[in-house]
Amino acid sequence: MTSAGPFAFRVEARAGEARAARFETPHGAVSTPAFMPVGTRASVKGVRPDELRALGTEMVLCNTYHLALRPGSERVAELGGLHRFMGWDGPILTDSGGYQIFSLQALTAVDEDGATLRSVVDGAAVRFTPEIVMRLERELGADVVMALDHCPADPVDRAQVADATARTHRWLERCARAWREAGGVAGGQALFGIVQGGAFDDLRAQSVEAVTAHDLPGYAIGGVSVGEDRVAMRRAVAAAAPRLPGDRPRYLMGVGTPLDLFEAVLAGVDLFDCVTPTRHGRNHQAFTWEGRLNLRNARFERDAAPLEEGCDCPACTRFSRAYLRHLCQAGEMLAAVLLTQHNLRFFHRCMAEMRAAVVAGRLEELRARIERAQGRGAAAE
Amino acid sequence: MTSAGPFAFRVEARAGEARAARFETPHGAVSTPAFMPVGTRASVKGVRPDELRALGTEMVLCNTYHLALRPGSERVAELGGLHRFMGWDGPILTDSGGYQIFSLQALTAVDEDGATLRSVVDGAAVRFTPEIVMRLERELGADVVMALDHCPADPVDRAQVADATARTHRWLERCARAWREAGGVAGGQALFGIVQGGAFDDLRAQSVEAVTAHDLPGYAIGGVSVGEDRVAMRRAVAAAAPRLPGDRPRYLMGVGTPLDLFEAVLAGVDLFDCVTPTRHGRNHQAFTWEGRLNLRNARFERDAAPLEEGCDCPACTRFSRAYLRHLCQAGEMLAAVLLTQHNLRFFHRCMAEMRAAVVAGRLEELRARIERAQGRGAAAE
Repeated sequence: MTSAGPFAFRVEARAGEARAARFETPHGAVSTPAFMPVGTRASVKGVRPDELRALGTEMVLCNTYHLALRPGSERVAELGGLHRFMGWDGPILTDSGGYQIFSLQALTAVDEDGATLRSVVDGAAVRFTPEIVMRLERELGADVVMALDHCPADPVDRAQVADATARTHRWLERCARAWREAGGVAGGQALFGIVQGGAFDDLRAQSVEAVTAHDLPGYAIGGVSVGEDRVAMRRAVAAAAPRLPGDRPRYLMGVGTPLDLFEAVLAGVDLFDCVTPTRHGRNHQAFTWEGRLNLRNARFERDAAPLEEGCDCPACTRFSRAYLRHLCQAGEMLAAVLLTQHNLRFFHRCMAEMRAAVVAGRLEELRARIERAQGRGAAAE
Repeated sequence: MTSAGPFAFRVEARAGEARAARFETPHGAVSTPAFMPVGTRASVKGVRPDELRALGTEMVLCNTYHLALRPGSERVAELGGLHRFMGWDGPILTDSGGYQIFSLQALTAVDEDGATLRSVVDGAAVRFTPEIVMRLERELGADVVMALDHCPADPVDRAQVADATARTHRWLERCARAWREAGGVAGGQALFGIVQGGAFDDLRAQSVEAVTAHDLPGYAIGGVSVGEDRVAMRRAVAAAAPRLPGDRPRYLMGVGTPLDLFEAVLAGVDLFDCVTPTRHGRNHQAFTWEGRLNLRNARFERDAAPLEEGCDCPACTRFSRAYLRHLCQAGEMLAAVLLTQHNLRFFHRCMAEMRAAVVAGRLEELRARIERAQGRGAAAE
């Protein structure tokens, strides 16, 4: 166990590299492995915070870049910080804008000091440096704040990856300094450093070394959900996760499907975020233990069964597949709301199953179920 | 009191023409005056049935034309009827498609036997006759089914209004026959006839006479929310409502704003439906006792107050105007969901105030509050 101010990380069980743990924050504890729904602009699309809580959410992710643009981090601070602003009193993690340096690269210029991005709101230039990002994240007031990183555009271009990874390390140095100057963990925020290194095992290992040279409350693996195939992703996670300190939370950024989560848990990862359940929910896709269902499929026209027998979500306890299909076909907003809630509940149930399997020492026995859920099984066709 | 099979209408208090009553249906009772949220395609946009119930909804309206096209009335019947299909166990009213004859008139051909409309789903021809509509509504299975009416395109063209109104009466004859043949109220459905007559007091009075010549469980006033001004609308309601039998529910179709509802209650109307609260909610507008608020207005940027002090809706009990404004500005789905719920709660609170004022015999004392709510008061600018 590591206790760093209000942040404690208690490993409760291990199974190989996998662990079941409890991560304490100033806004409550998270049982890991845990999935964080994505609330980019301080809202998990279509779902209220009290509904998130009922679905099993313990921690949410918000986006520094988007919130800095609108409504502005100072405005959020004025209104009492992100927890009060969005009405979520549990733990929050803010990413750093590093992902936008990657995703908006056509509109972004990176230099040694930082990056200049374009505002998606009004096209204005937005300057992000390690110091600026640490200030923005302090104003937002999340429990966990991510360091600014430089995610290389092409994970298999070695020169580019080496350059971006080295810059990530130099930026982390500056992030850590700014964070310590603001009080470190005593300031109520845990800084997580981000491992880069692209698709190269040796660069991943070097990055782990450079990042963990800073004594931080947690560490993340970045640059693994940027278009590479699943094999490459697993390899990058396997190269990094087990090398991270065993007594700190490990967060895999932007991943992924149930099987991705399972593989990463096996490699020792504790925390996840991804738009998969919410975005799929808005696109008529429902995750179930029998595979993913496309609710626009004609086979559900007369199907009086719930999305998933035994699921306790607001969609499954009240509505038939036939009705949900009708909502999808008619373009009704309630379709997106209900499928999003179902998918979040499914992801949280997956994580709870993984946690229980770690505690019981039977994680591998879960693989067949996860693979079945992952597939487009018979139910999905 | 009138008791017609499972349908009873009990007037509990009167104040002038206004009444407070209790309308019983096979799926429960409704305290009137009452507002029915519009669930065109078997969903009140963005709101679950259990949430509607918590907001104070007692009865909802669904649309026969849209549901007949998709998913089809036979499909709904197969799946157990509309209540089961949409998960709402309270009373439901289905309109008849008459409004679509009006609103889709460019695509509609009316003849003596019925009307041929175009499907908004696939452009196919859709035939509506009194007999067909009665079958569709029987398959859907609502508690209250509306007769097929012909709403004139121009309420001030006397020849056109006289023609459409006479046709409405002939169609009602056929609707009533089909309904009686299916068992009448013993079949579990109450048929409501619709008064037309446009902007002409004498034609309205004649229409009341023709429609009430049929002994039906309730009567509606149609053709008053079709673009005419408020004065004309009130006049048409005043010409019809007090002439309808005092011991049956009176339903004013498609109206309106809080002040419209108040005026109609004064004239003796009991039931209302309108898209106003839901559509405005999706367009950043919130109703309050201080007037309507446009949440995109910059004045709410730093406003930590709820939409309305003392409101018990999910938006007001959890979120600030500043946060709701942020959701509107960012185009977040949750804005529409929350503002819709607030507006429905507001409309139900308005109706509850009117009912209490009827019981207390102080309806006119409510006028100033309703007019204030109606306005774009200081709070809205």
